[in-house]
Formats: sequence, C-alpha cells, structure tokens
Amino acid sequence: MKFARKPLSDCVPALVATARGDLPATLVITGGKLVNVVSGEILEGMSVAVQGERIAYVGKDVSHTIGEDTRVIDAAGRYIAPGLLDGHCHIESTQLTVSEFARAVLPLGTTGGFFDAHEIANVFGLKGIRLMLEEMRGTPLAAYMQVASCVPSAGPDIETTGASIGPEEVAEAYTWGEDVIALGEVMNFPGVVYGDEKMLGEIQATLRAGRYVDGHFTWPADDWRLPVYAAAGVTGDHECVTAEDVMERVRLGMYAKMRRGSAWHDVAKTITAHTEHGLDTRRMLLVTDDRSSESLRDEGHMDFVVRHAIAQGVKPVTAFQMATINTAERFGVARDIGSITPGSCADIILLDGNLADVQVAMTIAAGVVVAENGQMTAELPAYTYPQEVLASVHLRELPTAADFIIPAPVDSGTVATRVIKVIENHVDTEELILELPVREGRLVVEGTLSKIAVFERHKATGNKSVGVVEGIGFREPAAIAMTVAHDSHNVLVIGNDDELMARAAGAVATAQGGVAVLTGSGTVLFPLAIAGLMSAEPFEVAAAQSAAVSKALYDAGCTLNYAFMTLSLLALAVIPALRISDKGLVRISAGGIELVSLFA
Amino acid sequence: MKFARKPLSDCVPALVATARGDLPATLVITGGKLVNVVSGEILEGMSVAVQGERIAYVGKDVSHTIGEDTRVIDAAGRYIAPGLLDGHCHIESTQLTVSEFARAVLPLGTTGGFFDAHEIANVFGLKGIRLMLEEMRGTPLAAYMQVASCVPSAGPDIETTGASIGPEEVAEAYTWGEDVIALGEVMNFPGVVYGDEKMLGEIQATLRAGRYVDGHFTWPADDWRLPVYAAAGVTGDHECVTAEDVMERVRLGMYAKMRRGSAWHDVAKTITAHTEHGLDTRRMLLVTDDRSSESLRDEGHMDFVVRHAIAQGVKPVTAFQMATINTAERFGVARDIGSITPGSCADIILLDGNLADVQVAMTIAAGVVVAENGQMTAELPAYTYPQEVLASVHLRELPTAADFIIPAPVDSGTVATRVIKVIENHVDTEELILELPVREGRLVVEGTLSKIAVFERHKATGNKSVGVVEGIGFREPAAIAMTVAHDSHNVLVIGNDDELMARAAGAVATAQGGVAVLTGSGTVLFPLAIAGLMSAEPFEVAAAQSAAVSKALYDAGCTLNYAFMTLSLLALAVIPALRISDKGLVRISAGGIELVSLFA
Repeated sequence: MKFARKPLSDCVPALVATARGDLPATLVITGGKLVNVVSGEILEGMSVAVQGERIAYVGKDVSHTIGEDTRVIDAAGRYIAPGLLDGHCHIESTQLTVSEFARAVLPLGTTGGFFDAHEIANVFGLKGIRLMLEEMRGTPLAAYMQVASCVPSAGPDIETTGASIGPEEVAEAYTWGEDVIALGEVMNFPGVVYGDEKMLGEIQATLRAGRYVDGHFTWPADDWRLPVYAAAGVTGDHECVTAEDVMERVRLGMYAKMRRGSAWHDVAKTITAHTEHGLDTRRMLLVTDDRSSESLRDEGHMDFVVRHAIAQGVKPVTAFQMATINTAERFGVARDIGSITPGSCADIILLDGNLADVQVAMTIAAGVVVAENGQMTAELPAYTYPQEVLASVHLRELPTAADFIIPAPVDSGTVATRVIKVIENHVDTEELILELPVREGRLVVEGTLSKIAVFERHKATGNKSVGVVEGIGFREPAAIAMTVAHDSHNVLVIGNDDELMARAAGAVATAQGGVAVLTGSGTVLFPLAIAGLMSAEPFEVAAAQSAAVSKALYDAGCTLNYAFMTLSLLALAVIPALRISDKGLVRISAGGIELVSLFA
Repeated sequence: MKFARKPLSDCVPALVATARGDLPATLVITGGKLVNVVSGEILEGMSVAVQGERIAYVGKDVSHTIGEDTRVIDAAGRYIAPGLLDGHCHIESTQLTVSEFARAVLPLGTTGGFFDAHEIANVFGLKGIRLMLEEMRGTPLAAYMQVASCVPSAGPDIETTGASIGPEEVAEAYTWGEDVIALGEVMNFPGVVYGDEKMLGEIQATLRAGRYVDGHFTWPADDWRLPVYAAAGVTGDHECVTAEDVMERVRLGMYAKMRRGSAWHDVAKTITAHTEHGLDTRRMLLVTDDRSSESLRDEGHMDFVVRHAIAQGVKPVTAFQMATINTAERFGVARDIGSITPGSCADIILLDGNLADVQVAMTIAAGVVVAENGQMTAELPAYTYPQEVLASVHLRELPTAADFIIPAPVDSGTVATRVIKVIENHVDTEELILELPVREGRLVVEGTLSKIAVFERHKATGNKSVGVVEGIGFREPAAIAMTVAHDSHNVLVIGNDDELMARAAGAVATAQGGVAVLTGSGTVLFPLAIAGLMSAEPFEVAAAQSAAVSKALYDAGCTLNYAFMTLSLLALAVIPALRISDKGLVRISAGGIELVSLFA
C-alpha cells in the first residue's frame, strides 16, 4: 500500500545504511528549527533524512544522505515538528468517513490518532469497527483503533443498540493487528467499580493482550471511587473538566486527556493543573474527542487545540509534547510516532511564523509529502462500505404527530416533571423538576421548553420515549431529527411542534440516516448514509451541509455553540445528569445509572 | 512462589473488590507523605491499601479496606515512596549471587531492576543467563533480564570467550517470559553503525519481539555516527560521562542513563544536562552499572545514587522519578512498577528524615514487608547452581614466572611501548607510548609500571598475552590475579613481580575462580566459585572478603578508588582507549576496535 508503515524491525538495515551514507535518503529536510519534544528544546539549524516511511537521521548535517533521487526540502528556518496526534477521537463525530477525515486533518498537521469507533460499533458491532479499521489502514495516518467497550453504553435495560460487544469480541479485535491498541473509553464506570463481570472481563482481555484501557469517569474528582476505577487497570481518561480532575487522575497513574471538542471546551480549565498547580505534564494530553466537520474547517483540529493550550500560558514545546510524545507514550508507541528521532515514522510538519501560532505549512506522513499550504497534495485510495451499512435505519413505522403527545397522570392543573437542561459548551446536562401545565390529560410543553423523543431504529422494536428539554432556544415552530444520537444512535427528535417533529423523523428515516431541520422556512437535510452516522460526500460538501444544519438551527433560535453536537448527546445515557433513551428518561448520578419516570 | 508477581489482568477483580471495600486488604499503610512520581508532587496524609502483591487503593482514607487480618502499618508521617529501580545493572559485578544481591539491596530500598547478565553469558552463554533468570524469579525483586548482546563483546578475532550469542539465541531468550525484556548494552556500536549482520540481527530479533534495545556508545557526543546508532532502534544508553552525552542521546529519542558505579562517578557531570541546561528529565535515569559488594555495604545502592543526585541540585521528587517511573517507562512496565498507584505492584519504601536524605526505614516488595531498619525480615528461597558452573576455570597449564617475560624486538637500549594508563573513577583508559628500557632482549617494566597479562580460561587454548600498565601504584612486590576480567573473564594478572604473578594466577585457578592478591605479607583470596564470577557466600562474608582484597591492594600501594573493579575492566575490549585480551593489546577509538602490537 502507498502509505504502508512497516514495523521498525524490518526497516533497521536500510535506516542504518541511509544514516551512515551508503543508501540515499528518499526525502531530506534541511535547515529548520527542530521542535524536540523528547528533550523539550527548540534546536536551530537542524536537518532530517528520511528513508521510505521512517526517519533515518537527525542532525546538523545530512548532506551525506542525499543522492540523485533524494527529494530535498529546504525548511528555510521554519519549525520542524512531529506531526500532531489526537489521543482520543471519534471520527464518526465529524460525520466524515475515515478517508475524508484524513483529507480534512492532514493539511492541519494531524498525522495520527487513537480512534474509538464506538458510534458505528453501536450500530454494527465488531463488524463496524473492522470496516473503519480497514479504511484507516489505507490512509497516510498513523491510525490506531480502540475497541468500543460500552456497546451498549449503559446496558440493555437502559437502551437498545444495534449490536453489543463483550469480553470475547474485545479479545477477538486485538487479534486483527497491533494497530488495535486499546479498550475504548469505559463509560460504564459504575459497572467497573461495582464489579460488573462484563466490564471487568473486557478490561482483563485487554490487559492480557498487552493493550491499554481508556476511561470515562464523570463523578467528581474527589469521589472516593476514582481510585477504585484506577485499580481496575484504567490508565487514561478524557472526562476532565477541572484542574482537580486532571490532578487526581495523574496522581493515580492515569494519563489525563484535556479535551477541546466542538461543543465542550475543557482545556482552559483543565490546563491550570499545570499552569497554576505545577503538575508534571508528562501525563497530560490534548485531545478533541468530538469535533464536527465545520469545526475542522473553521477552527482546525489538533493545531487549533495546541494553539489554544499555548494561549492559556503553556510553553509552546510543552503544548506540543501534549499532542505528540505524551500521546505516543500513553499508548506505548513512542518508538514509532510522536517525535522526530531516528527510527521513528517520518510524520513531520513544517510550521511558519512563531511556534505559538501553530501555523502548519507542510505535512509529511509516513515519509510522503501529503499536504502543503492547507491543501492535500496526495491522493487517498477510495474505500467503499458494503450495502448493508448504507441501509441501517429500521423503524417499525414512521412516526406521526400523535407519537409526540405526552399523556399526563392528571387531567388538568400542573405536574412535577423531570426536564433535561442543556448547558452550552459542556457535555453534562442538569436535571430540573418543573411544574408543567396539563390540558386535557396531556402535558403542555411550551415557552423555553421543547419535546425530546427517541425512536429505536436498529431492530424495529417500536420502542419510543418522549420527554422535555430546556435550553434549546427555538423561537418559532421547529424540529430537528437525527440518526446521530449518542451512543445508541436511535432516531432522536427535538422540537416544539409535534407535526414538524414527525416530518423531521420521517425525513431522516427516508434518507436512511442523517440530520433534518424543519421550520416554517422548509427542510434542511444533511444525509448520513453510512450507518446513519457518516456522510458519503467529500469533506467540503459535508462541512457545507453540516453548516446548513447549524444555520437552520440558529435561524430557528437555537444559538447553542455547535448546537447539533450538543443535541446529539442528549441521549448519551452515561454522562450526568438527565438523558433520554428509547426506554425512557435516564438519570446518571454518583448513585449509578437508572431509568426514572418523567413525572417526579 | 512466595513472591510471585501475577499479571495485572489476573488481579483486577480482587483489586477492585478490595478498593471498594468488599475484600479486606492484606496490608495497609496509613498517614504518610506520598512521593507521587507520576504527578511530581509530595502529598501529605496519604494511605495505601494492598491486596496480595499489588496496590488496590491510594487515598486519604483507606479505612474501608481494613479487615480483621489486614496488617496495618502506621507511616507516622514518614515518606511513602515507590521502591527504587536500577535501570542498568550487572549483578555479577557485586560478586554476589542474585539472592545475596537481593538480600543486600532490598534493605536499601531497591525493589527492582533491569539486569544484564553478560558476565555469566561470556562464560556459559544462554544457559548462564537462564540460570540467573531462574534465581531472580525466586527473589522478591521485580527483576527483569536483559539478553547479553555482545558475547563476545568485540568479536572472536579480538578475544576468546566461553560462549557466544547471536540473533537466534537472542530470539530464544525472549520466549522464556515477559521478564526477559531487552537486549543488553550493544557494545559493538561500530558493528551496528557499519551494518554488522549479527548485531543488526540481534536488534531486529529484539524489536520483532516487542522488546527494547539498550546501547553502549563511547564515541564523543558530537560524533556524527550517534544518530546512525539511534537509527538502528537503540533507545537507551548508559555510557554518558558529560552533560552533552546525555543531551545528545535524549535529543535522539534515547533514555540517557547516568551512572554511579563503585569506580565510575558520572552522575555529578551528567546531571548538569538538567540542572544547568534545563533538559526535560523524563528520559534521564539513574543507574549503577557495576557496584561491588563493599560499595553496597559501605555506601548503598540506588538509595546512594538518588541521594547523590539530589546533592547535585536535583529536586528530590525529580531524582526519585529518575530511579522509579522514568526507569519503568523506559522498559514499558510503568503499569506494573515505578509508582504508587492502584494496580501497580506493591513495591513500597518508607523513608525517615528529609526526602533528600533517602533514608530507607522499611521495604515492601510484592506486598510483603521484606526489610526493616536496614535488616532483611523475610527469608529468601535457596538456589543451587549446577556443578558445571562451579568448575569453570580451564587453563591449558598453570602459569609460571616465565610466562610473564616480555621479549623485546631489540636486545638492549629502549623501545617505544604501548602502555595502558588507568584513570581513577573512570571506565576509560588512555594509551601512552613510552620508551621503555630493554635488557638482554627483555622489556624492563619497573617504577610506576606493572605488567598485565591475560590467560584464556574457557577452552584451555593456551592463549595468553602480556602488556604494560601505568597507574596501578604498587610500592612493593605484588600481584593480583582474577577470573573476573570483563567481558571475556579470562584470567587477568597484574603485578610487578613475575613469580608473584604466577603464584596469584595459580591461586585463582586452583580455587576454580576468584581474586588473589599476593605480596610479601602473604596471600589474600576471595573465592568466586560460581562461574569464576560470583561468591557462594552470604553478602556479609563476600563483602568482607572483597574488602580484604581492597585492603591488600591498598597496603601494597594500589590506592585507586575501588581498585579491583577498575582493574577488572582493563580487559574490556570495547571501551577506549587501550585494553588487553588473551589475543593481545586492543585499541578502541573512533576508528573502531583493533588488535595493536605492544611495540609502537
């Protein structure tokens, strides 16, 4: 394959021959300021020689490695840095295929990542993960797959998913290759703490295979059960929203991942664990978790996150460490990626301006120049998903307006109702108890409130539930429906008009997946044909369609930052406080995860 | 086995149950100042709960883990630190068996290490390594074996050893278990740089097995070939004697090991890479390499090295990192050892006084209290070496005085002679060219000079060579003979009296190994029956015998610091500048390793 990455052991003779000058380098970069993330220094006047996909030599002078066919790139004093790594990322959140994700992020300097395909896993199980892994292997990215641990995220009694994964499936996935590197975020942390056999079994299978266990713990940093979770062998966690979250995890031996997704902005607070509290940074990582295609286009990817971290007062080389060597060390692959050192993969970026600007001018991945000045210069191979993946929305019947009526336990007056409150730029929600009016035995949802409903779409069970949400902001009749609804990815519908809600749901069902916003102005559809999660279109088209959804939401009054992403998580039954699944309202608290009734 | 260390995967259910309070801890330590090497902090009022051999809980309060049978240790405000790790150590250099080494270092706070049995490998090959590995596995130490890479160290044309190891043997050793963790120092660095098939084959076998390659590069830090060596996949090196040595290695992605052996004192200079040059410390390790039993008794082991590093101005917690987590990370075992975190092995030390004093009051290894107040409190299992290993000295015939005569190329006058110059406290020697007198066709070696001879002892080939050494210091007729003579461990004899030299050689041959010092005052013998390298006696007896050798040398005028260790390296044909083997004088320079004639 064009971007194949052979193991170092196979490359050693050629690397040594190139380094000593007996075999010409394939590529050479001369005269740059090397961002040395191992020593924590910026070194002037440095050059790098590459043989095939790996770095053969790093030093002041690489002239002895240059032959007739060597491509020589003059860095002209620019920074030479290792390609950026995303230490926790769900590609499906971009709504792009892996190939289109690669096309989007390579020009931004991201050359590798640790991807948890737990969205497609909830739809197609192990088969879905395998398909994305195969697509990954064709890209120039140093891409590593994590095996989704929580499918379903919170147990079959809480929600219905398209598939389930247990210890045996986890063990099987590790046999696919060394690039299947870790157990994805173990969101069922109460299960781990209280000895759930499936969760401990998946962790044990992972440790037995010499792989790593990533966490997801959302109780407070000072909860006495965080060390219990750590005792299970969990060594990484991105659910850090405060400095204390970072500090307590690192103290317990975890790598703390600081997240700047599209809709959750945790870096500014979490980074103070270092900038204010002086924590050793070696186990602090920068990650994206979930970023939309629009965010990639308008803000960037890891380049944006590193720049943002520097803007919080982190020394530039330290911020680069948090997105390169720290990340590689967390997953035991620092011999292969994460630094510009002899033997490492030639994943290299050149940067203009000051280092703090993180202004990527050229990206080299696996020894190939793949992007320059923000544009891809390399072709990626096409990857085709099987037909089955393109027809994944199985409703028992299309919803009608009547499906959104909420019968009340009283005929009139008011009733104490559990309401999901959205918090902008945060993953968490709040649980409100509001006295809502009842008319003719039906709950009245109006004003700043909307209805929220989930329809099971994997097995055509006909399961559905309807609840109430605060903070959407619709100022006119509007509805949004989506087959992206973490983590079970059933059909999630939010709106203030039962008829529009039904039509929105019908639109995404008919399209075999997608996001539809319906208002008085019409319908905006973002088709997501691949598993109901990802667009079959190129990055630029998908980003434009995603932006159209955002604009339609905004125009209807939903001005939440990256509204779609925030809304798509309202069904995520593992993050506090109140959520909704196809089985009803779900409350997540320090006491555990439980179905609760709509009426308090 | 008593001190068995099961994999974490097997321990997870019990650890989690203990951590949440459902299964009583086996051991608990309460109320100490935790030396948290992950976060780089000292945390007050911390407690630790242990289940079997691993840590189940770390926090302010572990009362929920205490049951009727839990042993509770009140730290009473003392420091609680992870047990110290030696990142590069030859146990044979202590002249102790592994068990006696463990008895010596456990009370000093060393709970684990990365051991390169390349001395016994030169005598008995892979079988010797296997025997020491088996002995290791019975001790409380978290002991990892490195496979000796350079047996012989510099090729069969340069010296004769008892065995040889190549790529196939290296690959075989990794099948013995995950505790065979790395390829031992690749001293034939010119071979690596210039593409020697055997050396690259051993490295490739190591990388293929997912293990680590340790280096040994003695050309200057700014030699253009250091990056070539790094390109081969070498990621650790302890041959650092200057700050630049450390900095250049770390910049190239290596872990730089700073050594304080008995006779080489490299920490004070090398540590300035951090204290003066500000290098990131994560890839800086403290190691001992070679320490004698006397050094262990009189100075200490890693406790001494850490204390010494702190005395150079390193922050105490940073110095602890250099002997705990950094070391564990270098070998990919930070999930098991190197920090006090849930899931890690319960290798814990309590320290009195200030942290900078490194005053170890109690040592816990694999969850068992093994030492208190400098004394072992746990019994170690006995280990018996096979008879073959106890009869390893095979000379063709016992040397006589005539063997030490050096015929000159002239009958009288003087002749330009290559002389090995010893440098106190350093591994290096210098090459001197001196005009030495000749009488009756024989070289006259007198004054500050001594003769130095090597007799092959593995295969009874009868090979021998005689040379001249400066800097021994004998002020009276004296000779020392030894079967410890790195790395080939032939019989090395140094003296200024041919008759005494012959008798000294006879003494060690008759004893089937050892060190003998002969002077007018008599004979001092330190028997080393195990492979001619290690004493069959307890640590205390061996240290006393070792001290007697030192005293005899001192009394005879050889006042070099740790004279025996320095002398035993005069046959080490891979460290600059001039050495001696059974095949003649060996010169090691930036040009390579070559036999040279005695007369220049």
